[in-house]
Amino acid sequence: MKSFELISQDKNSSARLGILKTAHGEVQTPAFMPVGTAGTVKGITPAQLREVGAQIVLANTYHLMLRPGIEVIEKIGGLHKFMAWDEPILTDSGGFQVFSLSPLTKINDDGVEFASHIDGAKLYMDAEGVTQFQNRLDCDIAMCFDQCPPFGCLPNELKDAVDRTIRWAKRCKDAHKNSQQMLFAIVQGGIDALMRRQCSLELINMDFDGYAIGGLAIGEGHENMIKTIGLTAPLLPPDKPRYLMGVGMPADIIAAVMAGIDMFDCVLPTRNGRNAYAFTMDGPLHMRNNGHITDAATIERNCDCYACQNFSRSAIRHFFNVGEMMGPILTTIHNLRFYQRLMSEIRTRIENGTFAQWANAQILKMLSLNEPGN
Amino acid sequence: MKSFELISQDKNSSARLGILKTAHGEVQTPAFMPVGTAGTVKGITPAQLREVGAQIVLANTYHLMLRPGIEVIEKIGGLHKFMAWDEPILTDSGGFQVFSLSPLTKINDDGVEFASHIDGAKLYMDAEGVTQFQNRLDCDIAMCFDQCPPFGCLPNELKDAVDRTIRWAKRCKDAHKNSQQMLFAIVQGGIDALMRRQCSLELINMDFDGYAIGGLAIGEGHENMIKTIGLTAPLLPPDKPRYLMGVGMPADIIAAVMAGIDMFDCVLPTRNGRNAYAFTMDGPLHMRNNGHITDAATIERNCDCYACQNFSRSAIRHFFNVGEMMGPILTTIHNLRFYQRLMSEIRTRIENGTFAQWANAQILKMLSLNEPGN
Repeated sequence: MKSFELISQDKNSSARLGILKTAHGEVQTPAFMPVGTAGTVKGITPAQLREVGAQIVLANTYHLMLRPGIEVIEKIGGLHKFMAWDEPILTDSGGFQVFSLSPLTKINDDGVEFASHIDGAKLYMDAEGVTQFQNRLDCDIAMCFDQCPPFGCLPNELKDAVDRTIRWAKRCKDAHKNSQQMLFAIVQGGIDALMRRQCSLELINMDFDGYAIGGLAIGEGHENMIKTIGLTAPLLPPDKPRYLMGVGMPADIIAAVMAGIDMFDCVLPTRNGRNAYAFTMDGPLHMRNNGHITDAATIERNCDCYACQNFSRSAIRHFFNVGEMMGPILTTIHNLRFYQRLMSEIRTRIENGTFAQWANAQILKMLSLNEPGN
Repeated sequence: MKSFELISQDKNSSARLGILKTAHGEVQTPAFMPVGTAGTVKGITPAQLREVGAQIVLANTYHLMLRPGIEVIEKIGGLHKFMAWDEPILTDSGGFQVFSLSPLTKINDDGVEFASHIDGAKLYMDAEGVTQFQNRLDCDIAMCFDQCPPFGCLPNELKDAVDRTIRWAKRCKDAHKNSQQMLFAIVQGGIDALMRRQCSLELINMDFDGYAIGGLAIGEGHENMIKTIGLTAPLLPPDKPRYLMGVGMPADIIAAVMAGIDMFDCVLPTRNGRNAYAFTMDGPLHMRNNGHITDAATIERNCDCYACQNFSRSAIRHFFNVGEMMGPILTTIHNLRFYQRLMSEIRTRIENGTFAQWANAQILKMLSLNEPGN
């Protein structure tokens, strides 16, 4: 049941078309996963999430471990039941969060001691514990516990993190006991080609269900990110799904698909939506802008989302202006649909052979439009 | 097109079954109108509002006048288009808000000078202006501009408010120029029988499309409220809809239906929903309560709302606990559905002759359960 089928390979780029088969259904790749950190995509019901076209969502082991606790979700019948989402779920291992959110971390080869970012409680995570947590959450794809070193760290710190990530991946694989669940390894190594190569080869030798590229979109910039993806993706086995973690802006996603990435997650469509930033193919709109006060147009022409089918920019601006939840909700719905439309267009263009040329033009256009216009 | 059809009259109480026909469709009465003060029922899309069974919503002239302004909504094509709600809308005139929200009001027979509760800007409302605003919003039911005196005011203040409410109603009727729109008068008079009688008779002589009872649920308590409704409703013409403004708790609604009321609006299902208070026929639940941490049950057994069809109390408690919008959204959906199920049961029981006995038992039960149990 759990497998990855590579359907086709673009002739003019490294882009791939595939189907990821999980215990809760199939995902067409390249795919974008909306982020439901605490068991809910912020402001959006599962019914609305299905309506925007999402086929898989991401949730976070770190956050769910802190609140409500793994045992609570297990008692309710697993994460799918708890979230009321019967389709595929990927859980992040918490490796990224434990380093980015916790004020006090003490790391050694065994695991990580850290303080909860909620109440300062002393907690501990290690490869076995995180794997067991994800087994119990019963998500479709579990991620290995990894160490994500900060951008710009010293070479020996980077090497230590890579070595630890490799050792922990082995321990995760040994601890993994859920036969319905896929386990993906995470390639670290910053923007260092040699580190990325070493990490990839070691992880591939352990034979995981899929491979993620972690440690990007943490301050290195579009150029460095794309170069690192370009050198790492070809190292990964072509018959396994490739997941670029935490990325990104539409231009980043298109460029990464060109380099052979199959899966993405990012908080941008939801977080930006709550902050009144709406994505469109003609560049972003800031929905609080006074220019929208009497604007009867929808957020984006030809968009088939619920917001664009029903509401004017004027109404959405008003909802933000008076602090009504409907502003964030409608803009989140639009942004999530925008990302799904983008992935759908990418898949169609890979299929009909028009991807590469379109992608280059789109990336240039989008990078020139990355500031809100009005 | 605009009319009220009285379908049947309960044999054992003053309860009535009717159909209110508006330019945007029919409303089965007794009916409950969710409150969409600023052009949105807080947290709920129009699609979700339809799904909970709402047939009509209330919006507020006062709030819409301040933000985004009547001319904005007019430019977008009227309130239905602005709100994306193609079914009946009633707008409150703002009489209640101008007295309850504005820090500085100077009232005379012409109208009211007041300060915006948003930014302190000096504003003015009068009978003609408020009527024209509602004409331009193009809602289905407009309310006359009235003066709502505070509970416990002096007899001469009460009489002044009643006299003014009557004079303003006449001016509203003269100013009303939207032939598709119904205009309802508002009966004031506090809990004083003579004042209610005088106000009712004068307004009836002017022949409005419907009659509202205003100035209740402002601190007089259930007993005084029900007595005042009991003496006022029979004064109103049986062939016109009767609307009790701003009420209320389920027990209040059932008692008011017994006294012959056809329409209700109240912020309780939405406001309480946002505050984690869920209505059930067995009494309210507080969704933040630790008792729900591992509770796999839904909010209410046998409830057909989206929240109860999909989510455990455990998940909803978790969403409130971590500050996710999904807590308020799901509890609001449940509460709105609870109110619509209540109205549906009331209508069915009036139809099959079992209303009065059920109503008395329910009121006693609900009044004994009005504190959150767990």
